[in-house]
Amino acid sequence: MSPLPIEFWFEFASTYSYPAAMRIQDLAAQAGATVQWRAFLLGPIFSQQGWNDSPFNIYPTKGRYMWRDLERVCARLRIPFRKPTVFPRNGLIAARITCQFAEADWIGAFVRAVYTANFAEDQDISDVAVLESILERLGQRGPAIIECAQSSESKARLREQTEQAVRLGIFGAPSVRVGDELFWGNDRLDDALEWYKRGVV
Amino acid sequence: MSPLPIEFWFEFASTYSYPAAMRIQDLAAQAGATVQWRAFLLGPIFSQQGWNDSPFNIYPTKGRYMWRDLERVCARLRIPFRKPTVFPRNGLIAARITCQFAEADWIGAFVRAVYTANFAEDQDISDVAVLESILERLGQRGPAIIECAQSSESKARLREQTEQAVRLGIFGAPSVRVGDELFWGNDRLDDALEWYKRGVV
Repeated sequence: MSPLPIEFWFEFASTYSYPAAMRIQDLAAQAGATVQWRAFLLGPIFSQQGWNDSPFNIYPTKGRYMWRDLERVCARLRIPFRKPTVFPRNGLIAARITCQFAEADWIGAFVRAVYTANFAEDQDISDVAVLESILERLGQRGPAIIECAQSSESKARLREQTEQAVRLGIFGAPSVRVGDELFWGNDRLDDALEWYKRGVV
Repeated sequence: MSPLPIEFWFEFASTYSYPAAMRIQDLAAQAGATVQWRAFLLGPIFSQQGWNDSPFNIYPTKGRYMWRDLERVCARLRIPFRKPTVFPRNGLIAARITCQFAEADWIGAFVRAVYTANFAEDQDISDVAVLESILERLGQRGPAIIECAQSSESKARLREQTEQAVRLGIFGAPSVRVGDELFWGNDRLDDALEWYKRGVV
């Protein structure tokens, strides 16, 4: 019997998803778990709460704190960080790629490369050329993958996955699911993996 | 020269302030720091953000998660927890007492007792009798302290302290200030004390 996977629910625009995405595959491996990469969109979820932008933009005091805190968190975890000049960046195509190719062996590396582009290299991850370049570096055929990710079937898949997030009680990113237990935030990564280990052992 | 204090900014109704309030004096002592207890009110701050209730009530999905998470956090920290039947409870008088008697040697014990009443014993902390009972157990004259805390001077003091919180960029509770550095949330207590130790050493 193969071990239970842990589900990593994330949005490419989400700031605190960045340090979590960079670490989760290694942390999961140390715990004997595999990661299921579950990209979704925060936009529709925030809309339901009456927000038409990131709450970090709607509430500037909270936003100012978040950027300083993220800088400290990344420094502590030794993860490179440069504040993006545009926030939030549109991660729609990257999310469709992740959703469509979630089982590919290169998908974890793709997720990390997109986050690095956004939060360490200040690149525009909504730009197809940026995504193609990332895919090519991973040895993949960028244009073919992006064409597939932009198919109506692939678009529907991401919409469905976002609806599933709502049904699972997910309201923010990153969120980690271990069985039926939900953990929200980069700050809960260790707790989620502790939970996993307790369940498996 | 006495060491720099750390400032603990909290609201008695705030759920995540509970585990932080229960631990901060011990953690600070281990780091060689003293605690300045800074009660304030979240109500006026939330009003400015357009909220007329706790965001955990306004956004029920987030609220459901918070209660489960708080239960897990308290279990991990071995802090007793019982979900209050009323939330949020009105901590106005308790906050005025804390503000007026912030320098008293019993104030840390008072803060912990009020939080325990709310989040472990499901008592109504807006009830003067509950607060008097806590004060008496601490060897204080309850009615005299409450009368003083309800004076117009004391009311103005809490208002002023809440305005100061806003000026300091505080948007939620608990918040810890170490010098000019702000840390938000029970999850940042250890980081705040690390920061303190780095600054002192």
